[in-house]
Amino acid sequence: MGGIARYDVGRGHRTGAPEVILAEGKSTDHLLTLVRGLARRGHGALISRPTASQRRALEAAAGRGLPVQPLADGRLYRLSGPISGGPRRGRVALLTAGTADIPVAEEAAGVLESAGVEVLRGFDVGVAGIHRLQRMLRTVEGRRPSVYLVFAGREGALPTVVAGLVRAPVVGVPTSVGYGRGGQGAAALGAMLQSCAPLAVVNIDAAVPAALFALQLLAASGPRAPRPSRPRGSAFS
Amino acid sequence: MGGIARYDVGRGHRTGAPEVILAEGKSTDHLLTLVRGLARRGHGALISRPTASQRRALEAAAGRGLPVQPLADGRLYRLSGPISGGPRRGRVALLTAGTADIPVAEEAAGVLESAGVEVLRGFDVGVAGIHRLQRMLRTVEGRRPSVYLVFAGREGALPTVVAGLVRAPVVGVPTSVGYGRGGQGAAALGAMLQSCAPLAVVNIDAAVPAALFALQLLAASGPRAPRPSRPRGSAFS
Amino acid sequence: MGGIARYDVGRGHRTGAPEVILAEGKSTDHLLTLVRGLARRGHGALISRPTASQRRALEAAAGRGLPVQPLADGRLYRLSGPISGGPRRGRVALLTAGTADIPVAEEAAGVLESAGVEVLRGFDVGVAGIHRLQRMLRTVEGRRPSVYLVFAGREGALPTVVAGLVRAPVVGVPTSVGYGRGGQGAAALGAMLQSCAPLAVVNIDAAVPAALFALQLLAASGPRAPRPSRPRGSAFS
Amino acid sequence: MGGIARYDVGRGHRTGAPEVILAEGKSTDHLLTLVRGLARRGHGALISRPTASQRRALEAAAGRGLPVQPLADGRLYRLSGPISGGPRRGRVALLTAGTADIPVAEEAAGVLESAGVEVLRGFDVGVAGIHRLQRMLRTVEGRRPSVYLVFAGREGALPTVVAGLVRAPVVGVPTSVGYGRGGQGAAALGAMLQSCAPLAVVNIDAAVPAALFALQLLAASGPRAPRPSRPRGSAFS
Amino acid sequence: MGGIARYDVGRGHRTGAPEVILAEGKSTDHLLTLVRGLARRGHGALISRPTASQRRALEAAAGRGLPVQPLADGRLYRLSGPISGGPRRGRVALLTAGTADIPVAEEAAGVLESAGVEVLRGFDVGVAGIHRLQRMLRTVEGRRPSVYLVFAGREGALPTVVAGLVRAPVVGVPTSVGYGRGGQGAAALGAMLQSCAPLAVVNIDAAVPAALFALQLLAASGPRAPRPSRPRGSAFS
Amino acid sequence: MGGIARYDVGRGHRTGAPEVILAEGKSTDHLLTLVRGLARRGHGALISRPTASQRRALEAAAGRGLPVQPLADGRLYRLSGPISGGPRRGRVALLTAGTADIPVAEEAAGVLESAGVEVLRGFDVGVAGIHRLQRMLRTVEGRRPSVYLVFAGREGALPTVVAGLVRAPVVGVPTSVGYGRGGQGAAALGAMLQSCAPLAVVNIDAAVPAALFALQLLAASGPRAPRPSRPRGSAFS
Amino acid sequence: MGGIARYDVGRGHRTGAPEVILAEGKSTDHLLTLVRGLARRGHGALISRPTASQRRALEAAAGRGLPVQPLADGRLYRLSGPISGGPRRGRVALLTAGTADIPVAEEAAGVLESAGVEVLRGFDVGVAGIHRLQRMLRTVEGRRPSVYLVFAGREGALPTVVAGLVRAPVVGVPTSVGYGRGGQGAAALGAMLQSCAPLAVVNIDAAVPAALFALQLLAASGPRAPRPSRPRGSAFS
Amino acid sequence: MGGIARYDVGRGHRTGAPEVILAEGKSTDHLLTLVRGLARRGHGALISRPTASQRRALEAAAGRGLPVQPLADGRLYRLSGPISGGPRRGRVALLTAGTADIPVAEEAAGVLESAGVEVLRGFDVGVAGIHRLQRMLRTVEGRRPSVYLVFAGREGALPTVVAGLVRAPVVGVPTSVGYGRGGQGAAALGAMLQSCAPLAVVNIDAAVPAALFALQLLAASGPRAPRPSRPRGSAFS
Repeated sequence: MGGIARYDVGRGHRTGAPEVILAEGKSTDHLLTLVRGLARRGHGALISRPTASQRRALEAAAGRGLPVQPLADGRLYRLSGPISGGPRRGRVALLTAGTADIPVAEEAAGVLESAGVEVLRGFDVGVAGIHRLQRMLRTVEGRRPSVYLVFAGREGALPTVVAGLVRAPVVGVPTSVGYGRGGQGAAALGAMLQSCAPLAVVNIDAAVPAALFALQLLAASGPRAPRPSRPRGSAFS
Repeated sequence: MGGIARYDVGRGHRTGAPEVILAEGKSTDHLLTLVRGLARRGHGALISRPTASQRRALEAAAGRGLPVQPLADGRLYRLSGPISGGPRRGRVALLTAGTADIPVAEEAAGVLESAGVEVLRGFDVGVAGIHRLQRMLRTVEGRRPSVYLVFAGREGALPTVVAGLVRAPVVGVPTSVGYGRGGQGAAALGAMLQSCAPLAVVNIDAAVPAALFALQLLAASGPRAPRPSRPRGSAFS
Repeated sequence: MGGIARYDVGRGHRTGAPEVILAEGKSTDHLLTLVRGLARRGHGALISRPTASQRRALEAAAGRGLPVQPLADGRLYRLSGPISGGPRRGRVALLTAGTADIPVAEEAAGVLESAGVEVLRGFDVGVAGIHRLQRMLRTVEGRRPSVYLVFAGREGALPTVVAGLVRAPVVGVPTSVGYGRGGQGAAALGAMLQSCAPLAVVNIDAAVPAALFALQLLAASGPRAPRPSRPRGSAFS
Repeated sequence: MGGIARYDVGRGHRTGAPEVILAEGKSTDHLLTLVRGLARRGHGALISRPTASQRRALEAAAGRGLPVQPLADGRLYRLSGPISGGPRRGRVALLTAGTADIPVAEEAAGVLESAGVEVLRGFDVGVAGIHRLQRMLRTVEGRRPSVYLVFAGREGALPTVVAGLVRAPVVGVPTSVGYGRGGQGAAALGAMLQSCAPLAVVNIDAAVPAALFALQLLAASGPRAPRPSRPRGSAFS
Repeated sequence: MGGIARYDVGRGHRTGAPEVILAEGKSTDHLLTLVRGLARRGHGALISRPTASQRRALEAAAGRGLPVQPLADGRLYRLSGPISGGPRRGRVALLTAGTADIPVAEEAAGVLESAGVEVLRGFDVGVAGIHRLQRMLRTVEGRRPSVYLVFAGREGALPTVVAGLVRAPVVGVPTSVGYGRGGQGAAALGAMLQSCAPLAVVNIDAAVPAALFALQLLAASGPRAPRPSRPRGSAFS
Repeated sequence: MGGIARYDVGRGHRTGAPEVILAEGKSTDHLLTLVRGLARRGHGALISRPTASQRRALEAAAGRGLPVQPLADGRLYRLSGPISGGPRRGRVALLTAGTADIPVAEEAAGVLESAGVEVLRGFDVGVAGIHRLQRMLRTVEGRRPSVYLVFAGREGALPTVVAGLVRAPVVGVPTSVGYGRGGQGAAALGAMLQSCAPLAVVNIDAAVPAALFALQLLAASGPRAPRPSRPRGSAFS
Repeated sequence: MGGIARYDVGRGHRTGAPEVILAEGKSTDHLLTLVRGLARRGHGALISRPTASQRRALEAAAGRGLPVQPLADGRLYRLSGPISGGPRRGRVALLTAGTADIPVAEEAAGVLESAGVEVLRGFDVGVAGIHRLQRMLRTVEGRRPSVYLVFAGREGALPTVVAGLVRAPVVGVPTSVGYGRGGQGAAALGAMLQSCAPLAVVNIDAAVPAALFALQLLAASGPRAPRPSRPRGSAFS
Repeated sequence: MGGIARYDVGRGHRTGAPEVILAEGKSTDHLLTLVRGLARRGHGALISRPTASQRRALEAAAGRGLPVQPLADGRLYRLSGPISGGPRRGRVALLTAGTADIPVAEEAAGVLESAGVEVLRGFDVGVAGIHRLQRMLRTVEGRRPSVYLVFAGREGALPTVVAGLVRAPVVGVPTSVGYGRGGQGAAALGAMLQSCAPLAVVNIDAAVPAALFALQLLAASGPRAPRPSRPRGSAFS
């Protein structure tokens, strides 16, 4: 019962999801211990939402040889090495309502591209200018994405409008954009949960969960991989 | 200091707004006393949001000669007689996102039409079917409304989309439609307050305040009436 | 600009989703007008969340020949006739944490089975008895569902535990079960949005949106239908 | 599908609103890219709510020739060049309940004056000293403003009192003033939404949306411009 | 440790407050047991907020000789017999913003008049018609009340305006009047807590606590009674 | 995968807790199916929070021979037969702040007494009369309860005061008593979570969870029973 | 209509309250302008809740001759000169539940002592140690305060307990003490509003409003001053 | 009535709880005065949640001889000397769902180990990898802890799952981990309050109250100490 973390080497096998470490909230020491442990075992991983001081520590560790590098303008780090599930087929469309949503969308793009998925970007296509959106969607639909991740803050209407126009499933990702009541993504989350179109939703700024969900959806839509072998000592398999 | 209500005969003169009595929350006795008092003085008025038992009492009083009659399927009653401000010029467009918003919109229509304003109705034009909306707006814009009142529950996106497409000012009216978190109009109100388009907003189901605001806007956009005479004993005029 | 509803015959074509009418919130007259209109055109549809009085009206209309019949113990009605998208391939697993979640899950089952999808039921497998869950999942995983819809009220932990054990994407559906603070599904929704596993979420009791999302996911994972033709006469400009 | 923003050159034409870029929430790089792009095209614009570091970047860019200059004590920047809609006729009255509301009101004044509108200022006229307010309103009403924007934090009562005394429409703008429960504008927003006078409301500190709404109202009250031509190449279908 | 309630005969002596039993929330059996016990001991009391079925039970018990009678239109009952503190000197002014607030104010009046206090009523003097309020206050101030209890729902502005005009302390009583967001008194409570005038506040509809507070204030402002003797046999240690 | 519920016969063994079925939220059919299934197997159980119609159904079933009988004035039903864990030693003190909290406390008493635990009742000892509380506690402490369950609505201060005076652990149970803001137990829950004394807390009205927690605490404080045998097919044992 | 603030010289006369300027939220420039304006006119005032930078500016201005000096450890500043209402008679008791509440209480003490009122301090007497409180109150009651201001964060129970033990009116002042849910004074405010004793309440940390309310209460309880003369140009007198 | 704090030397005797000073919220001066006063009397104590500047002050005072030293990485300080209750028997299990919860758990460990209790640590065993948890619990259960304190942020499911698997009572401690809606522990707290297993709960990050509750539980489960003698000179009456 020592140590700070128990590596769940079975989970990737069970669920096919890449390992992602949420940095925010962890002490920097704990974070580095986790990452170094994975590196020693030769595992790859993604590190999401590092704080400013965690980023400095990761950069310093990289300077001392830890194979980590920033993605998405530093909102995400990649630890080199294989990640679970292997490369996926399929395309994922990422749309944003505004310019302020782009960094969140790029965080999802970092996860998806790390897993070998092609990303279609359509940024700054909010509902106050509906013609731009329609032009954009015509182009994106032509590329036949398997799923749309639609990022919006403020009033969060874009995923609803998109879901009324396309065939693929749409996941709404509210972003922490907007001030006053309902700001910081609260109104956007509420609007997506109330959508009159069939959306699924993730939490505010939850780009990584949205991307992992998209990866599972891609896995589900392709030919199924052989069933994972029995985890050691598990009741389940 | 007796009696239950002090008639503010000056307010209609000062603000040009018709007298509207909010029935909900008042005891039925107090409501009837108020209405009868106005009737005795020869004033007209509107009575909004009567409860079921208040409606029964109004109907009974009507049977005994009180000159009230239902509008908007009974969500509003009209006490005969002149109401402040006189007939207005101009048109007001009322749009609803769904069928469930129609009774709220009709409440606004009752107020506007009682004041002699022409109402343009465009119902059930929600954002999940953006093409219907665009066709509708093309027709409505041709009639040049001075203001749009746009009613929406659920995710409340319609006023934002409309405000990106039309020239006249848009007032969003959230309606108590939708279930679960953000239901009963809460998400719609939040979304309208967070709109990336320049909306003004009223409270959930506040059809009457929205209509009164529209009347003032029509008054402001037409030639100004002569300034009201000085209320008795007032510092203001 | 008359009438109460604009039939969006293009939307089913565009998105492949069956027509579902949310009854709750609409006046019974408006609801029947909508359903009769679709029946006259030979469209099929689903009617969700009818109130008690709307159910009585639907039953009465059925007695007079309207081809509607209850599903899911009356939480859903089916208007006979073709619905958009045609039969789907694939299986959807519906799991519930408790007995009280079953009626919500059956609402989703009604939508899915109306669209020809096979439903795998695993009910009353909450996390306070983790062994039951593991036995159940072993069986369900053997049938290779394309997506799990996991229904839970109270603390809403089941979707998180399931998503740590299976490969297919998991959509959490909070149910309005539980009393006190966080009751009526609020805590369950919060927990699902905060999940440390990659869930997507819908609103409280939003069985129908979850089922429609699953249908789109099934469509995305199968061979794509040809792109819909241009809606007639569309576009504002 | 590259780039970070799609210029919606049609929107100004469609709605008659000047282009305003909300700086807050955007990365400084994205903000400067947007502003420089408009400058290259010869468009004017307003930039609202810049953060401290964005202001430093704008000042630095101004030093290198970008034609931007601060308004309203730096809460707003003006990019030189024509803005949509052209000069308006009419006057807008800006009232504040307290001294702390003045910076928010000046943000609205910056937008209005940039559009050529005359602004009538009546600051620090809160309801705890009702006589000051009445004296002030007597003066302002004499100038016949087309609309009042009334700014108040704390208990937010001023717009209600004003709307009971004037003829022009009143828009309430809650400000983020006040501490404890209901502080930061929450109580003020709630009070304005609950007003017993016919107010329309915008979000907390939403000076720019209020000003844009006022501009549309002025446009609506003047002679209508010819209808905008069809946006180029628009429409999805 | 039997029985359902421990009579705190010392409290009235200690604090000088009359005994008031909050009926709401108690089982009807428990309520009647409490009231009968006081009656047997010859104590008087007030019974506040009885539910409909509790009122029927009280009326039935009155028919069988229990000396209770309704006040304030049945929102309050008086059990005959002496109540603590004896008759007070002084006057209390009760103002209401609207007609719907009157029943709540009358509940306070019932408590005050039961304690022998003179009540000055000024009803329906809301802030949207500020002139009526000023006329009313001129009259009331002439009677020199020791404290104002000011009742208001909706935006709850009246206590703030009154506190800016009078010398006596003002206690705001929000009432459960108003619909939509901030309705049922929530906005009124928020506004009173945020008041820019020095108000004290009680909970929504808390007419009885407000009246009891006023009684203590009257006691504090008159000559002090001799200090209560030591409660019998008290204290844990 | 048929049926509506999976009996977790292992859980009682694992945790030593009696089976309690939360009736509220379940359909009456599902509830009766569950109870009859347990009865057929010879298991005893408790049924908590039945609705009025569920109570009627249970009474009818009892009339047809199902061995269920009401406890705690019908807020709880007991299905005859052995319940897990067997009789416990020890005493539990139940204190309530007011008379309105008694029905909730009796629900806990029903669970505890069903498990053979002695209950010490001290009702109506709220903090506004601190002397009564001190007298009561002197008596109760003399009986040496192993744990206090302290029930309070309104301001919820009683558990804090008790925890400053006694040696045994104190569990606060907020009750849904009180009106206005913070009513229905919300303020009481907040106060208990913020207590400056070391309380543990359960949800509003959660008498049954509190009682089950007390049972586990009694089990923990007595000699430990032999460890449960391995559940079938489980990874855990 | 220039300038930033309209001095309401009549209000002090009307209400007998000293002038207090809320610094927080005002720009430092506006604050200094206000204070200097009062100084020029020879008015005294209090300045509450200055921010760190406002305090530096006040200290600097004091160094240049502005007659301001800090009270209550800098949470309050006093501008020399007469303040409205003149010296009061009477005593006010200030009690705090904990040490962390003392700075807030001292803010109230600063206002009261500036107005010549005697302050009785009883600090750190929270309800978890009820005996300390009882000893303290015995002493304080012997001094016969006219009103108690009782400061408490966390669970906010102290005002309720005090109000059950003393004769004078009790005003609860929640303080922003406590972490987690209900922290920062929210639970304390809720508990005070729900108190089963007759409290009046002010907002979180609202020491100044509480003190001003106490001053009015003292004025009401002493011999009434002659009625203020008619404010210039006012409708009221 | 001078001084800032009244030492309640009786409380430790009454309740058996060690003295813990909550540093957060107190001024650093007040904190040091309290600690030095205890040191002078030879009392030991714990100091919880010091801010950064309070930690610097404590370290400086330690350098000048105050016998304080940090525990739990500085989230807790120990003042040397005896603390109430003496050493306890028994073991407490501390489990955390993630790495980010460890610092909160170590705060509880510091309190428990200061009181001589053995702590069993099982960290990073969240519900998304249920197999790890089951392995861990098998080991921990073998050591027979008297109570589990289970720390979890995010969706807060771990205490529920644990309580379904172990015999000892489980106290859930939500931690301020997680972003977006329900972040900072809000969802975890809600989920624990809604748990379908019999949990007791403390506030977010309330490691110290949880540890103190566990100490009382250990005391209750061992042989009872003789009842404390009457506090000296206590009681108000």
